[in-house]
Amino acid sequence: MSNAALPVIDPVALTQSLIRCPSVTPADAGALDVLAQALTGLGFVCHRMTFSEEGTPDIDNLYARLGTQGPNFCFAGHTDVVPVGNAGGWTVDPFAAEIRDGKLYGRGTADMKGGIAAFVAAVSRLMAEQGTPDGSISLLITGDEEGPSINGTRKVLDWMAERGETIDVCLVGEPTNPRVLGDMIKIGRRGSISGWITVHGTQGHVAYPHLANNPVPRLIRMVSALLAEPLDLGNDFFQPSNLEVVSIDVGNPTTNIIPGEARALFNIRFNTLHTAASLEAWIRARLDASVLDPARDGADADPAAFYTLKMTESGEAFLTEPGPFSTLLTKAVEAVTGRTPELSTTGGTSDARFIKNVCPVAEFGLVGQTMHKVNEHIAVEDLENLTRIYQQILTGYFAIGGRI
Amino acid sequence: MSNAALPVIDPVALTQSLIRCPSVTPADAGALDVLAQALTGLGFVCHRMTFSEEGTPDIDNLYARLGTQGPNFCFAGHTDVVPVGNAGGWTVDPFAAEIRDGKLYGRGTADMKGGIAAFVAAVSRLMAEQGTPDGSISLLITGDEEGPSINGTRKVLDWMAERGETIDVCLVGEPTNPRVLGDMIKIGRRGSISGWITVHGTQGHVAYPHLANNPVPRLIRMVSALLAEPLDLGNDFFQPSNLEVVSIDVGNPTTNIIPGEARALFNIRFNTLHTAASLEAWIRARLDASVLDPARDGADADPAAFYTLKMTESGEAFLTEPGPFSTLLTKAVEAVTGRTPELSTTGGTSDARFIKNVCPVAEFGLVGQTMHKVNEHIAVEDLENLTRIYQQILTGYFAIGGRI
Ligand SMILES: [Zn+2]
Ligand SMILES: [Zn+2]
Repeated sequence: MSNAALPVIDPVALTQSLIRCPSVTPADAGALDVLAQALTGLGFVCHRMTFSEEGTPDIDNLYARLGTQGPNFCFAGHTDVVPVGNAGGWTVDPFAAEIRDGKLYGRGTADMKGGIAAFVAAVSRLMAEQGTPDGSISLLITGDEEGPSINGTRKVLDWMAERGETIDVCLVGEPTNPRVLGDMIKIGRRGSISGWITVHGTQGHVAYPHLANNPVPRLIRMVSALLAEPLDLGNDFFQPSNLEVVSIDVGNPTTNIIPGEARALFNIRFNTLHTAASLEAWIRARLDASVLDPARDGADADPAAFYTLKMTESGEAFLTEPGPFSTLLTKAVEAVTGRTPELSTTGGTSDARFIKNVCPVAEFGLVGQTMHKVNEHIAVEDLENLTRIYQQILTGYFAIGGRI
Repeated sequence: MSNAALPVIDPVALTQSLIRCPSVTPADAGALDVLAQALTGLGFVCHRMTFSEEGTPDIDNLYARLGTQGPNFCFAGHTDVVPVGNAGGWTVDPFAAEIRDGKLYGRGTADMKGGIAAFVAAVSRLMAEQGTPDGSISLLITGDEEGPSINGTRKVLDWMAERGETIDVCLVGEPTNPRVLGDMIKIGRRGSISGWITVHGTQGHVAYPHLANNPVPRLIRMVSALLAEPLDLGNDFFQPSNLEVVSIDVGNPTTNIIPGEARALFNIRFNTLHTAASLEAWIRARLDASVLDPARDGADADPAAFYTLKMTESGEAFLTEPGPFSTLLTKAVEAVTGRTPELSTTGGTSDARFIKNVCPVAEFGLVGQTMHKVNEHIAVEDLENLTRIYQQILTGYFAIGGRI
């Protein structure tokens, strides 16, 4: 059946309404209200939920579903945006959503309110042209993707699991295209772990080094050991894993004092050849082998006495292997743009790292070139084309009964 | 001729008067007044001078001379003291100069008001017992030894040079004995230079390392190159030179950001096998050879484009070779204490580094075990014995007509 009485949503107008809510993470600023109102008008049942955790800001989230039967096609994304940054560098009001020369400007246009609006518009066109789909369409939208990602997608998924609410496939609407709409679909992401090394020494005076124990040479050896050889050379779907030492800190301004402690901070972006656990074991082995100073520590010295390592994992590597889902996405992109998108696993992390635990997940959205920068913008034409791509994906998905 | 009318100064009482002036550097707190009054009473002509320089505190100094003929035996020292430190750790008032169980407590007792008082007392006894010496005795006392040492001894020496005021030998009264009075005479000091390395990179996101240029691995290689081998193995009079990396700082708390700059701070204590200039050349050669990353910088890369090095010299190494002066000091120490002092060049820097440019200089004073610590103290007995040692040195010096 068709639904001629339902509104057909304009992706540009909805993007503008969302941009005009200054939802700088963790603020919602009314963005989810705007979205929920549009979805309710299309017949979605909206669940709003606020999650809290000590030491983190409270976060508003939305899960909306149209239909009650499977298969359930889920679109995931976030309405929070990064701060304006250098406000003086903007030539437009970052929250005015002005259109100039075919470009729609504003913080969050690319990342990723434009993507959300395009998906909602696509659903409205699908309903108007083809009627209610044979299955369900849902949206999982968080306000905690640009923040600590603690009270967002992860907790919405927990809430869904408790209620027996399942999704069968998920498309994340992050801006995946480096330069032109149609460049790139993401079918996986590298994992990310960070580590804090603290080396314990004994403070003293530089004129009496034998009475002190300088932690800096130990830390230098340890960091050198971590950087000595590559973690891997990559595989068919991933670039090589990469370790970056992003800070070393002692904080001693005094030239005649040997410090008592030295710290290093590193991050690893890793592919599916590793897990967070396998990397931690690799790191500890390297640090244990390099921390000691044979000339002064003695043969029986315990490496663990000289340093502490704290590690945090913010996502395992994952891959949705090329198959029916990536084919569905690729064909829709090709049909609208004439481009064959690269299937990529590059870039940073996204909330896809949580969703990959429940169903196949891939990502496609707008052009990310200006995301997180001043004068963030998208081409109005891209917004229309992305709406068409999303509509084709939905049409294709339900046409094959969700068998991907 | 003898001077029965002149006062004989008690080293304990004078030390106490000096301690009760809380002359925490750069404050004088009346300490030089106390000293000048005692010296004037002995017939010294006192020159008080305040030196200033932008960015440093004004400092009071004293040059006092008894007699107008050569040879001129100079005693050098400082009345400024280091801060109390952990005030709660003191079991006495740091500026009360209390005597308990034969020990005189107070900030500056060992370093080095006790040494100054002992020298003034020695002069008073010499005058009382043997009359005015055949030559001159002078004191060069600064209030800027524990501070930046900019408005102190160096400028007093400039002032003296302008006036044609010469000294023929100098004894610095720093607390040279590690444990027991008579342990150690210092006949030289290592030099000290410090260096600040700043490595320039390009900030970026850890997920896109090819768009950034992490300065940390460069700095690690550079610092490793400086630490790779010892500067020397020492010589007859000096221990090996030593390089300590005392700080490395990036200041990046963000695990997903590659920093744009990294800094290291090092200090070298060096012996007479080097000069500040030779070391700077050695350091620049090492840094130039290690800063580049052959895999990404290209064959023509200029090392100087990647880092800056700022160096400051706070004293060249120097040695007053064993000879008549050290023999004179050694015999006096042996006669009073029964110990044969080691002729050493260990430890930190002192104002002797300035004085060595104008005449032979050596150092002998009290026991330094508690200097710069809580409950700084000296044995009252040591103060008496040091007074005797100083008197013997003066007697011996003038007995040989200053020919050392
Ligand atoms: Zn995003
Ligand atoms: Zn001193």
